[in-house]
Amino acid sequence: MPFRRYWTGCGRGKHVVKLIPLGGLGEIGLNMMVLECHETLFVIDVGLMFPEDYMLGVDYVIPDMSYLKQNVKKLAGIVLTHAHEDHIGALPYLLREVHAPVFGAPFTLGLVRHKLEEHDLMGHTALHTVLPGETLKIGPFALEFIRVNHSVVDGVGIAIGTPYGTIVHTGDFKFSHTCVDGMATDVSRFARCGEQGVLALLSDSTNVENAGHTVSDCEVAEVLAGICQRCTGRIIIALFASNVGRIQQIVEIAVATGRKVLFNGRSIEVSVQIAQSLGYLRIPEGMQIEVDQVRQFPEDEVIIITTGSQGEPMSALARMAAGTHRQIKIMPEDTVILSSKFIPGNERAITNIINDLYRCGATVVYEKIARIHVSGHAFQEELKMMIRLTRPRYFIPIHGEYRHLVQHARLAEQEGIAKENILLVQNGDMVTFGPCEAAAVTGSIMTGRLLIDGKGVGDVGRSVLKERRLLSEEGMVVINMAFDEETGVVIYGPDLVSKGFVFETETGHLLDDAQCVVLEIVEDVPPEVPNRLEIIRSRVQSALRQYFFFTIGRRPLIMPFIIEV
Amino acid sequence: MPFRRYWTGCGRGKHVVKLIPLGGLGEIGLNMMVLECHETLFVIDVGLMFPEDYMLGVDYVIPDMSYLKQNVKKLAGIVLTHAHEDHIGALPYLLREVHAPVFGAPFTLGLVRHKLEEHDLMGHTALHTVLPGETLKIGPFALEFIRVNHSVVDGVGIAIGTPYGTIVHTGDFKFSHTCVDGMATDVSRFARCGEQGVLALLSDSTNVENAGHTVSDCEVAEVLAGICQRCTGRIIIALFASNVGRIQQIVEIAVATGRKVLFNGRSIEVSVQIAQSLGYLRIPEGMQIEVDQVRQFPEDEVIIITTGSQGEPMSALARMAAGTHRQIKIMPEDTVILSSKFIPGNERAITNIINDLYRCGATVVYEKIARIHVSGHAFQEELKMMIRLTRPRYFIPIHGEYRHLVQHARLAEQEGIAKENILLVQNGDMVTFGPCEAAAVTGSIMTGRLLIDGKGVGDVGRSVLKERRLLSEEGMVVINMAFDEETGVVIYGPDLVSKGFVFETETGHLLDDAQCVVLEIVEDVPPEVPNRLEIIRSRVQSALRQYFFFTIGRRPLIMPFIIEV
Repeated sequence: MPFRRYWTGCGRGKHVVKLIPLGGLGEIGLNMMVLECHETLFVIDVGLMFPEDYMLGVDYVIPDMSYLKQNVKKLAGIVLTHAHEDHIGALPYLLREVHAPVFGAPFTLGLVRHKLEEHDLMGHTALHTVLPGETLKIGPFALEFIRVNHSVVDGVGIAIGTPYGTIVHTGDFKFSHTCVDGMATDVSRFARCGEQGVLALLSDSTNVENAGHTVSDCEVAEVLAGICQRCTGRIIIALFASNVGRIQQIVEIAVATGRKVLFNGRSIEVSVQIAQSLGYLRIPEGMQIEVDQVRQFPEDEVIIITTGSQGEPMSALARMAAGTHRQIKIMPEDTVILSSKFIPGNERAITNIINDLYRCGATVVYEKIARIHVSGHAFQEELKMMIRLTRPRYFIPIHGEYRHLVQHARLAEQEGIAKENILLVQNGDMVTFGPCEAAAVTGSIMTGRLLIDGKGVGDVGRSVLKERRLLSEEGMVVINMAFDEETGVVIYGPDLVSKGFVFETETGHLLDDAQCVVLEIVEDVPPEVPNRLEIIRSRVQSALRQYFFFTIGRRPLIMPFIIEV
Repeated sequence: MPFRRYWTGCGRGKHVVKLIPLGGLGEIGLNMMVLECHETLFVIDVGLMFPEDYMLGVDYVIPDMSYLKQNVKKLAGIVLTHAHEDHIGALPYLLREVHAPVFGAPFTLGLVRHKLEEHDLMGHTALHTVLPGETLKIGPFALEFIRVNHSVVDGVGIAIGTPYGTIVHTGDFKFSHTCVDGMATDVSRFARCGEQGVLALLSDSTNVENAGHTVSDCEVAEVLAGICQRCTGRIIIALFASNVGRIQQIVEIAVATGRKVLFNGRSIEVSVQIAQSLGYLRIPEGMQIEVDQVRQFPEDEVIIITTGSQGEPMSALARMAAGTHRQIKIMPEDTVILSSKFIPGNERAITNIINDLYRCGATVVYEKIARIHVSGHAFQEELKMMIRLTRPRYFIPIHGEYRHLVQHARLAEQEGIAKENILLVQNGDMVTFGPCEAAAVTGSIMTGRLLIDGKGVGDVGRSVLKERRLLSEEGMVVINMAFDEETGVVIYGPDLVSKGFVFETETGHLLDDAQCVVLEIVEDVPPEVPNRLEIIRSRVQSALRQYFFFTIGRRPLIMPFIIEV
C-alpha cells in the first residue's frame, strides 16, 4: 500500500470530517461516497452496476447501504452529480428505507423523478433543484455545484466547503471546449478553487489508461454529418438516451440535410421530453415526426434516433435488426449508426445485431470503423489539467477499478502531488480530515454489494450463485425412490429425471444404466442395516457422480429423493 | 444478397470443382473448407471455436463434419495452414472418425503431433511435412504452400491448381516486412500467381474493419525493449504460446539487457521445445533457466515468459496473480507485460488479473496503455495489396463474421473486382467452378456446429442449453410428495427443496408458505377425482410459478415429483 498512510494521533474526535466511499473505488459503477462531520452526513451519488458474467440471473447490483441506515438520523441529504445509472440507479433502493432530501441539477432530477414515479416513491421524496454556481448548505458543509462536461447533460462536480478546507469532487467529467450551449466544464471555477486552496481533490479515474485528450465532440459531429450527407436512404442512429448533446447535434444535422427526426424507444422518448421541457434540446417546429408517420416520408428525409447501441435484446434497435419491430423494418438502403462505445461484456450482443443488420442489407457504421463516438471521461492530459487547476493538498482517485486508482495515483505523483498526500482509498475506508495532523485512512466500515434479482434485494449471494453456476454448466439429475417402511422393499422407482444435462434421446440409455447403478446399491444395503436411507442416499450421490464423470466427463448436480412411506 | 449469383446451366456435372466451407464463413473460428473434384476431395483446416456466452458449460465448439463422413471414400487429405486452434483444434474429432493423411508445415505438424498424442490418435495418422514452395498432388489438385506472416510461425497460404485455374487461399495472413528470419509473406510468389492468372482468391477477412496497415513487429519489439530497459525488477511477459516470433524478440531483448529467460506454463514449454527443435527459436547457450533456479538470480537478471494473457483461470499468470503459483510470487518491483490482444469476451477475466497484479504492487503493461502487441491479421491496405497482387477473376471473402465478409466484399469491389464476380458465400454453400459459365453458388449442404461438453460430442444442443440458462438464472424448486394408492391420503411430504434460488435462511419461510400452497391444492382435488395425480402436478406447477413470481419476481424451474405407492 505505497500511497496509504495511517492516522498517527492528535485531534481525533467528533468534529473531524470523514469521507467514506461506499462504492465505486475498486469497480466501475456503484458510485457512492459519504461525507460526515459531527452530527451530519450526506451522500454523493447512489449508483448501481450491471451484473458481471458470473452473477447468473442477477438484474442489478447495488452498494450495501447499511452504514446509512445505521446513521439515518445524521443523514441530511443525497447529492447527485449526474443522471447516469451508475450514479443514480440505486436511489430507489435507498429511498425505500430512508427519507432524505435529494439535490441535483435540473436534468438529473428530471430523470430521477421519472425513476421514482416508476418505483412509486415520489410521494415521500423531496427533490431540490440546484443550478451550477448555486450553493447549498448541509450542516457544516457548504456545497457548490460546478458544471462539468460529460456524456450526459447537466453533469456537475462539487466543491465542498468543510471546516478544514475545500474538498473538490469532480463527478464524471472531461474537458470539452467545443460542446453545445455552454455545457463546457467550468474551468475558471475549478481554477478559483485552486487559488483559494483545495484540501483534497477526488477525481474520476475511468479513462486514466488513455493517453492524450478526448477528441472533441465537434469532430464527432463532423464525422456524423459527413456520413449522413452521403446517405441516400434512411438513417438510423442508436445512442445512449441521456446523451442529449449528441441528440442536439443530430437534430442539427437533420435540419442541414432536410430530414425529419423520429425518436423511437421508451427511454429516449423520456429523455428527449425532459430535455426539451428544460430547454436543453431545441427541435425546430415541424421537424419531429411520430412513428406512424414515418412511412409518409421518402427514405432520404428521415433520421430515426433510437436506443439499443449496447445490444440490449429488447431495445428498439434489436427488434429492428431481428425483424420484430412493429413499425420499422430495416431496408437495404438504410444506414445504421451506433454512436456509442462497445462496453466490455456487451461486444457479442452488439456484433450480433450488426451482423443481423448486414443480413438485412443495411450499411452499419460503428466505433470500430468510424470516429462516431467520444468518451465522456477525461483522458490523461485532462486529468493532469484538473490536478493543475485545483492544486490540491491531498489527492484521492475515485471512480475506477483498482488498477485505474493506482495509475491515477501515479499520474498525480508525476504532477507534483507529494506521495504521502496521495491516498489510495478503497470502498469502506474511512478517511479523516482534522484540525491537525495529516489526512489519513483511520479505519474502515463494512461495505459490500447487494444483488437484485426480481423483487429480491440481497437474497441471492455467493452460495446461490455457486449453485446456479453448477446447474448452468453441468445440469442436474433427480432420483426418486420410495421404500416400504415396514418391509424395506422398493415400492416406487428409482425414477431418474435430468435437466440441462444431455439430449433426451441420449439421456435414455445413460439414465437406464444409472438406474441399474442405483438398484445395485439398494441390493448391497439390505433393510436391516441401520440408517439405511442415509447410506443409500450418500452412496447414490457418489456412485452417480463417478458414473456420469466416467461415461461423459460431466458432473451434474445429483439430487436423490429417497423416502420411506 | 447483392453479391451472390446462382448457376444458370451448362457444364454442370461430375468434373466441376466444388468449394464448400464447413465453417469460418459467418463466424470467427471453426475454419474448415472442402475442395472437391470428381472422386477426390480434401479439406483445408479443421478449426474449433471457444464457446459463446450462452453456451453454458460447453468446452469447445467444432464444425459439423457429416459431409466428410458421408464422402469418406473421396477424402484424400487434410491440409493445414497454421497451428492456431481455430485452424487445427477440431482435428482430433475428425481423425477419430476418418483416416486421411495430414499435410502441413513443420511447426504446424509439431503442434498437431503433440495434440494427437494427447488424444491417443498418433497410431493411425500419417503426418506429411510440406515446406513453403513445395508442391503436393491430391487427385486432380496441385497444391503449393506459400509462406505468409501471421502471429504464429510457419503460416502458409495455398495456391491450388485445379482443372479450371488456380484458386489462392490466403490462410490467416498479414504483410510484415520486418519480421524475424525470412518468415515474411512471400509477396513475389503471390504476384507470380497473379501474373499466371488466378481463378479465385479466398482471403482472410478478420481485420477488414481496421483501416491502414498493421504496425510492424519491429515497432512492437522496440516498445518492449524500451520497457524492459527501464525495469529494475523482474520482468514477466505473458503471450500466446505459439507466437514464436515474439518469443524470439524477447529472447534477444533478454540477451541485450543481460537477463536469463525462464519459460513457465505447459503450453509455452511445448511450443518452445518444438520451435527450438526445428531451429525456429534460437536461445544462446546458458541463457535459459529452469523454474527452480529462478531464485538464484537477482531480480533484474530474469525475464519470465509465460501464458495466461487471456485471463485463463488455470494459467501460470493467473496463479501468480492469485498468489497460488508454487514457485513464482509477484513482488512490488515486478513488471508484468501482457503482450497480446484483449479478445472480446475475455476482458473481465484479464482485467481481474491486472487488478490482482496491481494489488500485489506490480507494474502492469497491457495493450490499452502501450503498443506491445500487433494483430496477425491484415488490415485494409494489406487486404487491398493481396487483391492487387493476385488479380483474381473471382473473389470470396473467408474467415469472418457476416459483417466482415460483406465489408471485405465491398473492399474488393472498390479494388476493381467486378461485382458479379464477388461471391458472398456462407457455411454450407457449394460454389462450383466449371468449364463454362460463371462460378456460382449452385447448392448447399447441411452444416452446423457441434458442442463438446466433457466427453460428449453433440449431445448438448439448443434444448439442453435452454434448460441450463433457465436453471442458471432462476434456480429450481423440487416438490416431493407421496399418496397412498388405496386411500389417496398424503403419506409423505410435501417436501420442498430449492437450488440456486435464494439464501437458505430466506428460503425457509418462502418454502413454508409454498408448502401451504401445495396442501391447499391437494385439498381441492379429492381422491375420487380421475387423473388426480396429473391434475395435482399441473396445478402445483402453475400455482407455485405464480406464487414465486408474485412474492419475489422470479421464475424458478418447478419440478413436482408426486407419486402414488
